[in-house]
Amino acid sequence: MTSTLVLLRHGESTWNAENLFTGWVDVPLSDKGQAEAKRGGELLREAGALPDVLHTSLLRRAISTANIALDVADRHWIPVKRDWRLNERHYGALQGKNKKQTLEAYGEEQFMLWRRSYDTPPPEIELGSEFSQDTDPRYADLGAEMPRTECLKDVVARLLPYWESAIVPDLKAGKTVLVAAHGNSLRALVKHLDGISDEKIAGLNIPTGIPLRYDLDENFAPINPGGTYLDPEAAAEAAAAVANQGR
Amino acid sequence: MTSTLVLLRHGESTWNAENLFTGWVDVPLSDKGQAEAKRGGELLREAGALPDVLHTSLLRRAISTANIALDVADRHWIPVKRDWRLNERHYGALQGKNKKQTLEAYGEEQFMLWRRSYDTPPPEIELGSEFSQDTDPRYADLGAEMPRTECLKDVVARLLPYWESAIVPDLKAGKTVLVAAHGNSLRALVKHLDGISDEKIAGLNIPTGIPLRYDLDENFAPINPGGTYLDPEAAAEAAAAVANQGR
Repeated sequence: MTSTLVLLRHGESTWNAENLFTGWVDVPLSDKGQAEAKRGGELLREAGALPDVLHTSLLRRAISTANIALDVADRHWIPVKRDWRLNERHYGALQGKNKKQTLEAYGEEQFMLWRRSYDTPPPEIELGSEFSQDTDPRYADLGAEMPRTECLKDVVARLLPYWESAIVPDLKAGKTVLVAAHGNSLRALVKHLDGISDEKIAGLNIPTGIPLRYDLDENFAPINPGGTYLDPEAAAEAAAAVANQGR
Repeated sequence: MTSTLVLLRHGESTWNAENLFTGWVDVPLSDKGQAEAKRGGELLREAGALPDVLHTSLLRRAISTANIALDVADRHWIPVKRDWRLNERHYGALQGKNKKQTLEAYGEEQFMLWRRSYDTPPPEIELGSEFSQDTDPRYADLGAEMPRTECLKDVVARLLPYWESAIVPDLKAGKTVLVAAHGNSLRALVKHLDGISDEKIAGLNIPTGIPLRYDLDENFAPINPGGTYLDPEAAAEAAAAVANQGR
């Protein structure tokens, strides 16, 4: 038996547009991001990739992207599960900082290490500071698991328990599963699915708003390694643009 | 221990605006309905009536109302449960019909019997007809429970199992529960909560977009019978307007 997993990275947020590190800061979609989400829903509908269940992060930009896309695809009524383990990477003390200014202040090498190394997190965020979420009620149950910064390795470590305990059971039940999440939480998932090395994952960008379909075998390994974008041309163009962020 | 239940009737839909019987037909909110939903979210926020969990019907107008209101109240991240038992009353063969024309065709007495009697459903809808939902995938699991028409008594009968099995456990867990639903599914719930007779429920209208808060005792009986509208003046005005629908 095979199953279908669809990954959807949220559309542009207001802070993407302003070139700021976002992480766990809960910013809304920009107008462009809302349009991307609509297009994502049209692609789901046109491909007949109709989700039976939705998993989202706890962040507005992923939640709104899913709400808009599912409404367009006439699947607004499906069950929803939300979990912090699908959140974007926590960007530590960089949250709220301008990417270009950070690049200039710390230099190319340090900047790329924070952005793309597998296991070097940015400095920890100060508790109680403007862009910290340490008193946010949605994370009240996390306790010691509440991150103050994360590298991609940390995201993999907190994501995989949710994959195993929440997403795989839905796939086992024969459901088409939509995961609406973020650049780094989806990179963590794709790294696991496609068995990408710690080094090679640095070069992988997932474009926004274009559903990425994986057909999985009975062991939840991809029949189509790398997945299939529902709009391959737009995906190729968008991936190139993401790679140039912060320049 | 007390618990808090907040009821929210969806804002105006495009078919409300056109004065058509809607029932289970899945129409979107009008612009006015979207504005009502935003105002509902502001009222939740201003009153500090912040939901910990959302229950909605499977219909877009309730789902969108909840999405918009929770986004405004910064509670877009709470868990969501959806169930057909919270749907609007199935309006049978009247679905898609103009209310004023129906009134003229069948006369005041029959019209008010269909609209307001407790136990007289409209004629059954024809399977496969334009406004029937018998092949809609969201109802595929209903089997013999799938209605072809409903009176309010039928709505009470299908709603109460969900109240007991899904909503009461959340209240018992100390959660503030938001139920985003419809004129008649909320009337059915209020009838149960306030012990309203089969006769008197005919005179009860719940206005759209204004959260109605119930503080419940340990037996889930209202401490504030009739509930408390978060905008009492607007509620009184709106209830009067609803009572005049179809005239």
